[in-house]
Amino acid sequence: MTRPLTLNPDRLFPAEPATRAVAKRLYARVKDLPIISPHGHTDPAWFAGDAAFPNATELLLAPDHYLYRMLYSQGIALEDLGVPSRKGRSSADPRAAWRSLASNMHLFRGTPSSLWLNHVFAEVFGFDVALEASTADLYFDRIGELLATAPFRPRALFERFNIELLATTEGPTDPLTHHKAIRASGWAGRVVTAYRPDPVVDPEHEDFQTEIAQFGAMTGKDVYSWDGYLDAHRLRRQAFMDMGATSTDHGHPTAQTADLSDVDVRDLFRKVLSGVFTPADAELFRAQMLTEMAKMSLDDGLVMQIHPGSFRNHNRWLHGAFGRDKGADIPTRTDYVRALKPLLDKFGNDPRLSVIVFTLDESAYARELAPLAGHYPALKLGPAWWFHDSPEGMRRFREQTTETAGFYNTVGFNDDTRAFLSIPARHDVARRVDAGFLAKLVTEHRIDEDDAAETAVDLAYNLPKRAYKLDEPAATRTPELV
Amino acid sequence: MTRPLTLNPDRLFPAEPATRAVAKRLYARVKDLPIISPHGHTDPAWFAGDAAFPNATELLLAPDHYLYRMLYSQGIALEDLGVPSRKGRSSADPRAAWRSLASNMHLFRGTPSSLWLNHVFAEVFGFDVALEASTADLYFDRIGELLATAPFRPRALFERFNIELLATTEGPTDPLTHHKAIRASGWAGRVVTAYRPDPVVDPEHEDFQTEIAQFGAMTGKDVYSWDGYLDAHRLRRQAFMDMGATSTDHGHPTAQTADLSDVDVRDLFRKVLSGVFTPADAELFRAQMLTEMAKMSLDDGLVMQIHPGSFRNHNRWLHGAFGRDKGADIPTRTDYVRALKPLLDKFGNDPRLSVIVFTLDESAYARELAPLAGHYPALKLGPAWWFHDSPEGMRRFREQTTETAGFYNTVGFNDDTRAFLSIPARHDVARRVDAGFLAKLVTEHRIDEDDAAETAVDLAYNLPKRAYKLDEPAATRTPELV
Amino acid sequence: MTRPLTLNPDRLFPAEPATRAVAKRLYARVKDLPIISPHGHTDPAWFAGDAAFPNATELLLAPDHYLYRMLYSQGIALEDLGVPSRKGRSSADPRAAWRSLASNMHLFRGTPSSLWLNHVFAEVFGFDVALEASTADLYFDRIGELLATAPFRPRALFERFNIELLATTEGPTDPLTHHKAIRASGWAGRVVTAYRPDPVVDPEHEDFQTEIAQFGAMTGKDVYSWDGYLDAHRLRRQAFMDMGATSTDHGHPTAQTADLSDVDVRDLFRKVLSGVFTPADAELFRAQMLTEMAKMSLDDGLVMQIHPGSFRNHNRWLHGAFGRDKGADIPTRTDYVRALKPLLDKFGNDPRLSVIVFTLDESAYARELAPLAGHYPALKLGPAWWFHDSPEGMRRFREQTTETAGFYNTVGFNDDTRAFLSIPARHDVARRVDAGFLAKLVTEHRIDEDDAAETAVDLAYNLPKRAYKLDEPAATRTPELV
Repeated sequence: MTRPLTLNPDRLFPAEPATRAVAKRLYARVKDLPIISPHGHTDPAWFAGDAAFPNATELLLAPDHYLYRMLYSQGIALEDLGVPSRKGRSSADPRAAWRSLASNMHLFRGTPSSLWLNHVFAEVFGFDVALEASTADLYFDRIGELLATAPFRPRALFERFNIELLATTEGPTDPLTHHKAIRASGWAGRVVTAYRPDPVVDPEHEDFQTEIAQFGAMTGKDVYSWDGYLDAHRLRRQAFMDMGATSTDHGHPTAQTADLSDVDVRDLFRKVLSGVFTPADAELFRAQMLTEMAKMSLDDGLVMQIHPGSFRNHNRWLHGAFGRDKGADIPTRTDYVRALKPLLDKFGNDPRLSVIVFTLDESAYARELAPLAGHYPALKLGPAWWFHDSPEGMRRFREQTTETAGFYNTVGFNDDTRAFLSIPARHDVARRVDAGFLAKLVTEHRIDEDDAAETAVDLAYNLPKRAYKLDEPAATRTPELV
Repeated sequence: MTRPLTLNPDRLFPAEPATRAVAKRLYARVKDLPIISPHGHTDPAWFAGDAAFPNATELLLAPDHYLYRMLYSQGIALEDLGVPSRKGRSSADPRAAWRSLASNMHLFRGTPSSLWLNHVFAEVFGFDVALEASTADLYFDRIGELLATAPFRPRALFERFNIELLATTEGPTDPLTHHKAIRASGWAGRVVTAYRPDPVVDPEHEDFQTEIAQFGAMTGKDVYSWDGYLDAHRLRRQAFMDMGATSTDHGHPTAQTADLSDVDVRDLFRKVLSGVFTPADAELFRAQMLTEMAKMSLDDGLVMQIHPGSFRNHNRWLHGAFGRDKGADIPTRTDYVRALKPLLDKFGNDPRLSVIVFTLDESAYARELAPLAGHYPALKLGPAWWFHDSPEGMRRFREQTTETAGFYNTVGFNDDTRAFLSIPARHDVARRVDAGFLAKLVTEHRIDEDDAAETAVDLAYNLPKRAYKLDEPAATRTPELV
Repeated sequence: MTRPLTLNPDRLFPAEPATRAVAKRLYARVKDLPIISPHGHTDPAWFAGDAAFPNATELLLAPDHYLYRMLYSQGIALEDLGVPSRKGRSSADPRAAWRSLASNMHLFRGTPSSLWLNHVFAEVFGFDVALEASTADLYFDRIGELLATAPFRPRALFERFNIELLATTEGPTDPLTHHKAIRASGWAGRVVTAYRPDPVVDPEHEDFQTEIAQFGAMTGKDVYSWDGYLDAHRLRRQAFMDMGATSTDHGHPTAQTADLSDVDVRDLFRKVLSGVFTPADAELFRAQMLTEMAKMSLDDGLVMQIHPGSFRNHNRWLHGAFGRDKGADIPTRTDYVRALKPLLDKFGNDPRLSVIVFTLDESAYARELAPLAGHYPALKLGPAWWFHDSPEGMRRFREQTTETAGFYNTVGFNDDTRAFLSIPARHDVARRVDAGFLAKLVTEHRIDEDDAAETAVDLAYNLPKRAYKLDEPAATRTPELV
């Protein structure tokens, strides 16, 4: 006997009836607003080529590290889940992999993955029975059939999802071919890129030397001189802006910044280029480059995003066998107060600069990040990120940052995902959790409901547009709200 | 159209009706108790001279770093808000500055500042419309008029606020003129001082050398000898006690303590006096001085307060232009377990000593501070402090300390404020949040309502009196509660 | 007038009525399940000899560091509470000590100790009036009388408590006499041991040299050679397994692991044996031994428990006067990401290994531990521990680990207690808090109630049996639940 799958319209709202009633009214104001996705990792090739997605496993399981890391933690081999390795595509039968997921859905109880998956199953594919062992084939077959149809092509889904803007993230030497193709195609969907220069900024990146060489070849600059290297960044930033970029992104091990003298930075640059450097040299170079990027942002207006604190490729064996981004990145304790000071000392008081900082270390929310963002004009707080992109994580983010930084030093939601089909689910979770948080403030008489409604709209729509400089907000203060 | 301003009588109580009903009953027991304010930063000159406060901006905005740091974070210049700089008074028009605040009240949604301000507006000034752009002038004019009247003079407000005791905080070389004047005036209001020797204890304080010289001049002791320096402290502590002090206060970058040998401490003292010392020397000297202060407390009975963990003057440019205490102090991760050990090894088992420890690092509540205070007789926990002096911050404090340290190793509420008019608002928030926390314990049958009522009274009134040795508690156990 | 003592049947459930109703239904599924206690510190001599417990003070107060540390923090001398010191038994009158507890029960308001005590008083001893000064003697006398009767002997209580399995913890040189006696007695109660080799693994342990000598004598191995030392471990592990052990336990200051070369480890072993070593050497040896223990676990199947992060014997004077384990151990900040990497690099991908990690640093839950356990097949999360074994602590554990690690990378509840009579109370608290947590997920439509019910049973019964390899779970998925 199969179990029904339903999405309760009150899901994620607080259970207390008065609070839930407020939350429902607030949510009603935002649920149909267009999706602004200013930071994420979808593949622009999908929207350039608009080819059909292959099957349930290759679309939903094999690329989703949230799913296969949980299954792996219980002893299921990644090969058997369709996850590609350094040797190439998995030889697993996609249907068998899907059955493995279906038989282990209990592992995801209480996780955001189950919320996202069920939203995709019910809303995107129209299922009304739950995924479990007995429905695995039904799901696999039905999803496969639907994916082959026109309404399930990437562009059609993009439009159906009511996405007003979607940003992808590309490396510094990416030719941006897909973004050019999207623009050339005449399709109205707004897909933009973001400049993530880590491979030419991080001397410890496994491709640093080849990326530097390519960086030079692509820009025609002498990237082995400090001035040429900086000019190459300027050129690539402009090329990214031509493809709609309004932001850069920096995924460093720490939030360290630096402000070296010209002599010292040239010495350091020579050292990291030589390949003979210490971990401290690499850290210092990354730190200095954040300050350099901030300086360029003051010239070209790109918003900076700093995503620090992930210990990448923690699992040595898995990294060797499967490569990067396979669910084996682990958060670490992260300092912001001392780390950001060099950059803030130089540019922190300039309101033209916008640096959006994220964290994987929630202990920094109330202690460091909210106090910093509640003071420095150049600093804003990115939303709850990655492992904390979840109902409890979002609640902690609001509870621990609002009282010191307010709502208006935050930037709305980022889905930050590779899982394209889950984008509406993720934004819906954020809108619901924010509605619930605001509703609690209303029922505890800490904020008026009118103010809460305006704030809900700002968090869902206006703040991301403003923070990422996407354009002038359509209506920051809608008349009926004030 | 203006919006109404009302203070809901149920504000800050949990929304769940049964819990709210208990919270209301508990709050009814404490709402009219006199205010005990055993630690804060109001200006004793107000109560000595009893002069009228000037205007809304100079009273409520320009001195309140909670307010202007938030406005500054959104790009509004401090000059334009009336904040004085190193050059002197701001040249901004106070009315224009006030309009700036009024137009940006949305930034404070969900912050304690909005709770405090609205309480002051409604309860102290009697406004029934909200502050916003359209009411800015109404507010500015009305507040100005009222401040010129007798009932709004400092002493009249002190009495109206039902303040039983108010402690200010003065530096070691303060002549305590205002406290003497208050006493000489015959006014019945109880205003006492507290001894904060940081300027002569912290070798890195910008005024260290001049303060040391003044310290010697004032006491007639040879403060350039270790014995004379300690004697000078003893004399000043006595002078402060003559002005009602029952406590000392120590605002160090860390909670580090030390217990050096006599030879080592004399060497270290010579070194820091010479001006040629390392940051580690300065840290060690501050650390040693906490232990010296504890030793003196065993002699003279003063309660010690340690307020560690603030990275002072984080914003270099702002410190240069505007000076200290301008909203640019940022909390840092703080260790207590190793830091306090030297002092605790020496005096921690002596129940005659009372050391009240605060934190800006909430991760230490459950991990370090509650376990330490739940064991050492000499240690008590100060309430949620500064950035954490807020409804969510207080809730986290109770949730993370009560189970290990109980209620009776805490010391009630400190408003710790320079904002005199907000004192009733701040104590009211604390009483409401504690009532809500206790009510939750009652409805979850973790504590009886009778016990909760007794505890609420203790937290609001008896514990601060006992912890700060203000006098014998009037009625620690009221008959009807037991 | 005495106050009634009642245990409300809804205690610890959320107050919101709909959530409470779900919690009650979930709790009804688990409240009568047998107790699995896979890790704790009860004394096997109780069950071997089955002698009557002496009196209330010696049974309930003098051995319970949760109780006497709180009383001590308020200035009551440990001697007066019946706590034994290095000089031997306390000379305090047990009745006087008991009166001291009774007069200070207000200190425990809001703490788990009050929940546990009241459960013991009401359920085990049948009291219907609260313990306070006026009932101290009534309690002391009645408890004394009952303890002298057959139904209050250790084995009878074990059976009455519905304990299916109870694990104790013994040092490596413990002769396991009591465990042998239990087995030889023919009593059906299942009491097993666990192997805690700290005294021969930690070079800084005060008994290290004598324990090493005894370790050699007991095993007949040359424990002064590395190979002989490892062989001795293997023999003792087998001896412990013969007494039912399924796990080892490691109480290290940090979670550091290491993977040294054979040459380096032999050098290090010689050094620590010589007695001339640095703290870093000791740390490295403990770190290496965790990896050695993991290796042995792959051979003999014992589950590893790591309990890191306690600063033992923090109170110097108290340690000197009273010895170890007297309530003066304080948690410290603990890193897992870098610390566990050497062990995980070597064995972390092997699903046959089961390493259960605990923490006293809650900031690691969401940041480090849930991400690690949600990825590595060999890693599981132990429940909220020690200072965090409390309603709020358990709630934080679930809220901060579930979204990333799910429920099925956790291992159910550990009571971890020396306080035998409190075991049912502690398991009951855990079952109630988990029911409340699951109920909130149900009412917020994040999980179905059927799934929640199955999960509740798994947390209370099946997961501890599976995680500790106690035997094949009776019914992991009960038919009526699926």
